[in-house]
Amino acid sequence: MDAATALRELVLDVPDHPEPGIVFKDITPLLAHPEGFAAVVEALAAAGRDEAGAVVVDAVVGMEARGFILAAPVALALGVGLVPVRKVGRLPRETHEISYALEYGEATLEIHRDGVAPGQRVLLVDDVLATGGTVAATRELVERCGGVVTGLAVLMELGFLPGRETAGDLTVTALTTV
Amino acid sequence: MDAATALRELVLDVPDHPEPGIVFKDITPLLAHPEGFAAVVEALAAAGRDEAGAVVVDAVVGMEARGFILAAPVALALGVGLVPVRKVGRLPRETHEISYALEYGEATLEIHRDGVAPGQRVLLVDDVLATGGTVAATRELVERCGGVVTGLAVLMELGFLPGRETAGDLTVTALTTV
Repeated sequence: MDAATALRELVLDVPDHPEPGIVFKDITPLLAHPEGFAAVVEALAAAGRDEAGAVVVDAVVGMEARGFILAAPVALALGVGLVPVRKVGRLPRETHEISYALEYGEATLEIHRDGVAPGQRVLLVDDVLATGGTVAATRELVERCGGVVTGLAVLMELGFLPGRETAGDLTVTALTTV
Repeated sequence: MDAATALRELVLDVPDHPEPGIVFKDITPLLAHPEGFAAVVEALAAAGRDEAGAVVVDAVVGMEARGFILAAPVALALGVGLVPVRKVGRLPRETHEISYALEYGEATLEIHRDGVAPGQRVLLVDDVLATGGTVAATRELVERCGGVVTGLAVLMELGFLPGRETAGDLTVTALTTV
């Protein structure tokens, strides 16, 4: 099964979650399908390689919580470290912290100050690009560490939201647009 | 680097997180180290194979949020699906739900009712076995789906807490005891 087929067949639309009017993209059927899950991981990991297949990033940053599920195997596939960006209060050592508006609600994210070393090239991995707020906040955190975000890889981009505009000059790899 | 070395050298003790008197096991340096991370994933995945190397589980269940980071690559390594157990309100479809006491505080976890099919053999994966509360709750959720939990694989067991007693007759694979 290829990644496009996996995303078409194994992601469920769930209306009115977590709030009325929001259509939630449920990736749990995809995660439950080993071939589909492996295919999307490989497709996401391609965003961290050049055309010759060489790895061109030094670390993968995953955003809590669904981002962890994808970022961890992508980091392993690329042979680079995984750096978690977490909700406030969960990382135990010195952090950089940022608050921002979500599609629904608000959030504060943190990164360990030593999570990314100065000059490191970082690929962000998450499940969905919606408004782009999480991505912009995470990029800011990586840059405060001195790192350089070279791209964002997501399963799905919500084409009716301004995620790509918010991402600005960031290279976005979305396996599908819905 | 083997798993034992990775755990000895790449897990940090952080005192007084998240509360005074708790020594938090910070696995972020391990996650940032590609060889160490790969070694512990392979060691955890061994808990889902028999002595001849055949996979003997049908699914891996990962507990939000740090459990996701380990459970996702373990599921991929075994070639089986990943089923997330999440904090309340995050899974969008019909769930089973359970509340229980944590080492510090209280939590409510959910699983999709169709997350595990009746008769499926399930390996639980998490980072730390502490009091065993999360494990017992997750096992109960899997059993409500009709699944059978065949084992628990964790990086670390906190030997001074009764996690293994709480786990009862569950086969526990802990890569290290601290």
